[in-house]
Amino acid sequence: MHRSRLAGFIIDCKTSALEPAATFWSEALGLGNLGREGGYIRLDASRRDLAIEVQSVKHDSRVHLDIESDDVEAEVKRLEGLGARRVEPVSTWWVLEAPTGHRFCVIRAKVDLTDRPGTRVWSP
Amino acid sequence: MHRSRLAGFIIDCKTSALEPAATFWSEALGLGNLGREGGYIRLDASRRDLAIEVQSVKHDSRVHLDIESDDVEAEVKRLEGLGARRVEPVSTWWVLEAPTGHRFCVIRAKVDLTDRPGTRVWSP
Repeated sequence: MHRSRLAGFIIDCKTSALEPAATFWSEALGLGNLGREGGYIRLDASRRDLAIEVQSVKHDSRVHLDIESDDVEAEVKRLEGLGARRVEPVSTWWVLEAPTGHRFCVIRAKVDLTDRPGTRVWSP
Repeated sequence: MHRSRLAGFIIDCKTSALEPAATFWSEALGLGNLGREGGYIRLDASRRDLAIEVQSVKHDSRVHLDIESDDVEAEVKRLEGLGARRVEPVSTWWVLEAPTGHRFCVIRAKVDLTDRPGTRVWSP
């Protein structure tokens, strides 16, 4: 048994100028800029119970979704069963590709998912 | 004075097979499938206070963000001031392009934004 839910999304920007990219999205979405954490700039979407971050990428700009889980491997297996495929492991998470062609990530939940809105419990 | 906030996102799928695309995303995100409404299939993200929809598109698959406002024109002008540009009007909304290259939409709020989490009030 494991849990998962939509964690939020990452705004991938094809630019080396991460600060102005994050400033735009912070102001456009009306979310505070929480500053840099590693390669990401976190936006304050706590009132929406979402994790929204901006990062620089080399591929074309896009938005990718993050699914968080208390068991990444079990969640990746569940998603494979739905037709997703593994692209690559990165640090503690996996990049997957949906049957619809979208890349998305399965990340380790940073919060206890028990009783969090939108959490689903999956049995093997 | 007008209000705006992140409404949610649309999962644009380059496929004519909308139903299986929506089934995948409904199950992947653990959100109920609310069925078709026009060209969209709505997912039930009400517990996350988000509007999440799946649609078929001719361009490459992507995720695009929606910003909702009680005054679309005022919000588009605000976003232009941040560096976004108008791409095209569609029905009651506008497609914009961010300085980071992302396409996104400004839509008419379907809910009263007063006191909704994440709503910001903007003065001209």
